[in-house]
Formats: sequence, structure tokens, C-alpha cells
Amino acid sequence: MKSTEDFRRELLEAGLLEDGGVTGLYHRSFHFEAIARGVEAYVSAAGHNEKNRQFFFNQVIARSTLEGSGYLTSFPDLIGVVSSFAGSGSDLPQLIERVNNGGDWNEMMSPTEVALCSAACHPVYPLIAGTTIPIDGLHFEVQAFCFRHEPSDNPARMQSFRQHEFVYVGTPDGALAHRNMWRERGRQLLSELGLSVDVIVANDPFFGRAGKLLEANQRDKELKYELVAPITSEAPGAISSANYHEDHFGETFDLRLPDGSRAHTACIGFGLERIALALLFKHGLTFRDWPANVKAHLSSTHDARLPEST
Amino acid sequence: MKSTEDFRRELLEAGLLEDGGVTGLYHRSFHFEAIARGVEAYVSAAGHNEKNRQFFFNQVIARSTLEGSGYLTSFPDLIGVVSSFAGSGSDLPQLIERVNNGGDWNEMMSPTEVALCSAACHPVYPLIAGTTIPIDGLHFEVQAFCFRHEPSDNPARMQSFRQHEFVYVGTPDGALAHRNMWRERGRQLLSELGLSVDVIVANDPFFGRAGKLLEANQRDKELKYELVAPITSEAPGAISSANYHEDHFGETFDLRLPDGSRAHTACIGFGLERIALALLFKHGLTFRDWPANVKAHLSSTHDARLPEST
Repeated sequence: MKSTEDFRRELLEAGLLEDGGVTGLYHRSFHFEAIARGVEAYVSAAGHNEKNRQFFFNQVIARSTLEGSGYLTSFPDLIGVVSSFAGSGSDLPQLIERVNNGGDWNEMMSPTEVALCSAACHPVYPLIAGTTIPIDGLHFEVQAFCFRHEPSDNPARMQSFRQHEFVYVGTPDGALAHRNMWRERGRQLLSELGLSVDVIVANDPFFGRAGKLLEANQRDKELKYELVAPITSEAPGAISSANYHEDHFGETFDLRLPDGSRAHTACIGFGLERIALALLFKHGLTFRDWPANVKAHLSSTHDARLPEST
Repeated sequence: MKSTEDFRRELLEAGLLEDGGVTGLYHRSFHFEAIARGVEAYVSAAGHNEKNRQFFFNQVIARSTLEGSGYLTSFPDLIGVVSSFAGSGSDLPQLIERVNNGGDWNEMMSPTEVALCSAACHPVYPLIAGTTIPIDGLHFEVQAFCFRHEPSDNPARMQSFRQHEFVYVGTPDGALAHRNMWRERGRQLLSELGLSVDVIVANDPFFGRAGKLLEANQRDKELKYELVAPITSEAPGAISSANYHEDHFGETFDLRLPDGSRAHTACIGFGLERIALALLFKHGLTFRDWPANVKAHLSSTHDARLPEST
């Protein structure tokens, strides 16, 4: 049976990924990117009939969004915040001296107003903060490169990767219905790509000992489901997750329904890199040898992003 | 005459860009992204016949690449380095307290081994560090989201934006020929999109008073050319730049030709967001009303990234 280590070596030898010089960082070949974009178009098409507001968010977001998301305090070990040099010209010789002699130049950096995006849905909520959410809810289709500082030799756990998400903001029932509908739709979509998909109750990796309680609570309430499949070995990993956040974001970002109660939110996220890897693991490293129907799904000319549709 | 301020407002009102909550950060609509990807495919096709090694780099790169690039000491005010929380569970209550009460939680962060990419060609050089470069040179086609910490109200100066680059590593003559060939090819490509392109000698914004000497040197030697066109107002700005680095990267990353001399490098970078903005400024905000030949160029089915070509 192929190990993660074997598969990683094959990916690098085939030139599909290139070692980025830091554990968990990879450069993507154009061919790998082609597969990821094929997945993007395929997944996007499945949400085509909904009235989604659509955004590509940057990996770089407002620091206040990270603070407001709760991610900073729940997963502080995974976040990334950005610093830069705010000194004057007279500080420059010291900076150069430290850089050239392996000194601690980082302590000469100052925090900026930006951070890295931890989850693709986070920038949605500040966009609508303080507004009244219509009773039939708001729908979003969004994508972002996300950063998670969890260096790993498993290419399924990259430090930088894309989530393509469908997000709902509205009533509790609407949020749960969105989550459950997409959980099933996602399972079908990914199964049609030839992947062996299971749906499991899961939890996020909350930080520290206190986090264990939050994890147990998340599982007890079945707030998080993962769609799992073999990614870089036979051991199944999450390629998508369908989440009901209750009023977590509604509270922080003051999202209210017409009756004044807090809006609830839900999302499904598709991991484009993980799905691409799962497809390569399942169907082999040569795209042209993949099953015809899988190739057809990923080469669909339906693409919300083609300029003709503008 | 339309001001940058007017055009920015039009872009936001049309929903092509969305304010990202921090000066110089924007969310991209799917339509804006469609145009940027159209430019990507169009530019990529122009380099199709060269034997390029092709990579999509991440915006997140190894900190050592930033150090080695020289960008850290030449443009320290523009860089971004990434910190995260490396504390233990017992530090968590203090972190939460600071986040909730507006305290300085940033000082609880520790530097990571990663930084943000400042220029799309930077990750090329460590990939080939210490190797002997063949006498006829190495060619690369690369893309990356780049980060520049220069908050501005002008959407042409985003903090996060894409460069699509063609990079050469080889002899001095080869590097200069690459730069000059692409400078002319780039001018033609961008002119064919209906843009009013001028080619000018330029310089990078080196930091501080000492940087003025480097700027003057860069201009005197004509190392940097910019292809400029109206982007967000009639005032021309750079939408592409063609650069000859002499042996700057060859020295830092120990790139040597077969005779032991240092390799020289050159690149052309196309700013996908700036070109998209220049097209919107020139042809209007409604893609379907653009000139037919421009639409055809951006809708080309030649796309190195389609899975069929794998």
C-alpha cells in the first residue's frame, strides 16, 4: 500500500508540486493548477442557480476580520499576522547589519493592519456587519487562499491552500438546511469524480486543554461534518467540510434578522488542493489517463469566470 | 476628465471590486477575476513556444527567500513577514484577555519561517541555487500574488496583486536579450488590447536617502523599463516592467555559468490587476461592450492551464 511519503515523492518527481523550501509549502505546476481550477469550475457550477454574491478574497485580509472571527483565540497556533518595517532611514544600517549577520531583524518589524486569511468565509461577515439580514437569507460563493501554520510533511496539509465556499447567512432553520443540502450535494459531486467519499461528524482542532471542551461540544451538537476520502494515502482525510456556526458570527459581526434576533450562518468549503490531490491519488498522475467522465467534469465549459458571462 | 477617485467609486458601485476594509485591500468580483484570468491566458500564450519551467508560487514563501532576494534591505517598508502564536495553553487566557480588551496581543506572536512574496520571480532563484546554469540559459514562466505594504486609495496600488512573469537565467547577453525582446513583445501585446502603451526608463522605489543613489544607478544603466498606460486615470502608470538584474540574484543564490562566472538574470512582469483595471478604464465597465478583438484576445481558448494539455 502506498504511503503518504511515497505519494509525496511521486508528486515531486512528476513535477506536479515543487518543494517550497519550508515544510508544508509547495509551488504548484501549471498542470496541478489546471486540475485545481477544473475542480473550482466544477464545484462552482453546482451552485450556479443560487443567487450568490461572489467574491475572490485575498489571502491578505484586515486584521480586524481575524480578531472578529474568533479564530485568533480558538486556533492561535494556526494563524498568521503580518509585520513590516516602519522605521526611518537612520534605522536602515542596523537592519542591514542584522540581516547580513544573522541577527534578529524581526524585532525591528512592526505590526501592520493586515493578517492572513484563516478560512475563506471569514471576510464575508464584516461585509454585511451591522445590516439587517432578509428573512430568506443571503447567499455567497467565495474563494480564498487560506493560511494555516501547521508545518507537515503530508502534502494534504499545506500551509497555504484554497477553500471554495458556499456561505449562508439567515435564520437558524435556513442555515441548517443550507449545511445539510450542501453536505449531500457535496458528497454527490465528489463521488461523481470517482472519489470514495464518506460523511463523518468532526471537530475543529481547538487550541489547548480548554479547547477539548469546545471540540466535544462541536461534536455533540453535530455542528461540523467532513466529507472524507483518501487524499495522499488510503487513510481518509477531509476534502470538504460542511459547518453550522449557530450565531457565532452573527454575534461578533452584529448580523440581525428583521425580528431583531441574531442571524445564524453555515458554510460548505471545498479544499481545491486536497481534492486535486485526492484525484491524483485515485486516478494516477497522468490526467489524460483519467476516466473520461471525470475529465469531462473537470473540463466543463461552464465557468462562471469566463469573461463572456460578464 | 475622470479622476482616480471617480473611477474607484465606479468600480465599487459596479461591484467589480469590493472594499476589503483596509486601505489598498480589495475583494475581487468573479467578473473582475474573469478579466484578470483572461489577461493571464493571453499573456501566457505569448510565451507558449519557449521551453519554460512553469510555476504558480504561493503568496507565502520561505523567509530565507525574502532575505536572499535583497528586497528586505532595499524595500523594507514594503515587505510582509508572518508571525504566529507559539505559546502554550497557559498563555491562552492572557492572549484572550488582550484580544478582548484591545491590548497588544501582537507582542505575544513569534516569527514564523515564512514571509509574503514581494515579487513573483523571487522564488525562482532558490529553486536553482548552487546549480550550474546551462550556457543557453533557463526559462521560467511564473505567477504569484505579491504583497506590498503601501496603503493607497488608488486601486492601481493594491497591497495584494498578481504578477505573471517570464524569467531568464543565463549569460549577460542572454539576459539583456530576454529583457529587450519581452519589452517589445509586451508593448505589442498590451497595445493589441487597445491600451495606449509607452515604454519608459524607470527605477524601483529604493528605501531611504541612500536608496536615491541606487535609483540613480538603476536609471543610468537602464536596468528597468516600465510599460505604462492610463490605469485608473489619464496619468500613465506601470502595467508591466522589464528588468535586467545583472548578477544580483546570481551572486546571492550562487548561480554560475559553466565557465564559473556568475549567471545574470532578467524578467518581465505583467501586473494582472493593473492590466485588468487599465482595460476597464479604457473600454468601460461592461465587458460585453468592449471591442470584439479585445474580447477575443481575452477569451482565447489557448490556455496552458486547461487539464487537456496535461
